[in-house]
Amino acid sequence: MIILKIGGSAITKKNAIKPTIDHENLDRICSELQYTNQQLILIHGAGSYGHIYAKQYEVGSKIETNSKERLMGVAKTQNSAQKLNNIVCEKLQEYQIPAIGIQPSAFIRNKNGKIIKFDYSIIKQYLDDGFVPVLYGDAILDENNDIKSSILSGDQIIKYLGENLRPEKVILGSDVDGIYTKNPNEYDDAELLEVVTKDTILESDSTHDAADVTGGMNGKINELLELAKKGVCSQIINAEKPGNIRNILENKKIKSTIIK
Amino acid sequence: MIILKIGGSAITKKNAIKPTIDHENLDRICSELQYTNQQLILIHGAGSYGHIYAKQYEVGSKIETNSKERLMGVAKTQNSAQKLNNIVCEKLQEYQIPAIGIQPSAFIRNKNGKIIKFDYSIIKQYLDDGFVPVLYGDAILDENNDIKSSILSGDQIIKYLGENLRPEKVILGSDVDGIYTKNPNEYDDAELLEVVTKDTILESDSTHDAADVTGGMNGKINELLELAKKGVCSQIINAEKPGNIRNILENKKIKSTIIK
Repeated sequence: MIILKIGGSAITKKNAIKPTIDHENLDRICSELQYTNQQLILIHGAGSYGHIYAKQYEVGSKIETNSKERLMGVAKTQNSAQKLNNIVCEKLQEYQIPAIGIQPSAFIRNKNGKIIKFDYSIIKQYLDDGFVPVLYGDAILDENNDIKSSILSGDQIIKYLGENLRPEKVILGSDVDGIYTKNPNEYDDAELLEVVTKDTILESDSTHDAADVTGGMNGKINELLELAKKGVCSQIINAEKPGNIRNILENKKIKSTIIK
Repeated sequence: MIILKIGGSAITKKNAIKPTIDHENLDRICSELQYTNQQLILIHGAGSYGHIYAKQYEVGSKIETNSKERLMGVAKTQNSAQKLNNIVCEKLQEYQIPAIGIQPSAFIRNKNGKIIKFDYSIIKQYLDDGFVPVLYGDAILDENNDIKSSILSGDQIIKYLGENLRPEKVILGSDVDGIYTKNPNEYDDAELLEVVTKDTILESDSTHDAADVTGGMNGKINELLELAKKGVCSQIINAEKPGNIRNILENKKIKSTIIK
């Protein structure tokens, strides 16, 4: 089993002023996903389909009054993220991938922005039946009554499913090749680290600006090291380089960082 | 609490050769749904967004082989039904209704076409927070391995939620005014029954051709009588008559059949 995350910035124009698909990238990525013969769970970010509304309506922040505006904000954020998922699944289906969109906000619950209820058995069932479940970053119910709703990121889904389903591989499609010894945008002698473990010493700014699809590797590395501690390896690849996703699914070696 | 069902034929062109919205009707219905100050759960059929694929791929029939074609059929049926839900919610949101689409196939399971797992607590939470949950007819996992997937109709969702959430009112938006003494298409002296109970004697063909949105009242009346036995009244109204939905939400009297 492989769990593959595609960042929202890879499939949408993340800085657009309204939700906008990056059709060229989405099409290429879907075409590359054909090349797997293993069980595959796909997770995508919401990109401009989620962030615009989530930010505008401050989803996940403390509620002063349970206003109509707050409700509309959550409703619009969810519906917009669902629309992206629908488009992604339709495109995957064009490539004969039996993609099943699974709406996180229909069954997953947070407390203080962390998953506390997630019956993943249905995902396992879809997988065992031969489908490719496709989850996504969403706005979900939060059991902290001060916020009532919060954002569930694709990264949280990865970590939860990684720990519980124990896939052979967790792949994070990013917009950089992996983790560098120093910030590669600032230092010419920055080198890509092929492997990162808990013993790897990273310079404090080595990851700081290597912005990945959801805005920085820093916290992510710690989460992936946690996952590694539990025996699940992960690999950061550049999803924007044509061929990379296909190659990784076909077990070919590509430039990347393995976290183990 | 009110549970209102809108048939797929009211909001889509049901006999279209590809999924097609009935924009005029959808817009009118959404505009009438503004007029409630009670908790509301909306359930809609899939209309041409579901039936075309479900029929083409025979979703719910016995599986000879777990072929790629079957998987694609289920995946396309689900994604198409989800697309309709997305459009419905977007339209409701235009009328400032905080509509939250809830994907049945993400968390409900059938066995032999009947619901066996349905954690409706999340629906209750959305209601209590002030949202309008919007569920829909969908293709879901079925625990009978001979079929693996089956159709979950809007009517099944109504019955399940009616029994468990015990709403004050269950309303079925149909394309006829209610249940008649005889088939109104054949007999000029057919009369609308204002009330139907378990003691009402219906002529055998009185409901046969009074096709409602999902193809016939016959089975439906028995299900609604079951619901009545458990103390939950339901009411069949003509959702195609402008003003009917608004009037019923405002507790005004309209032509209809009450099943109690």
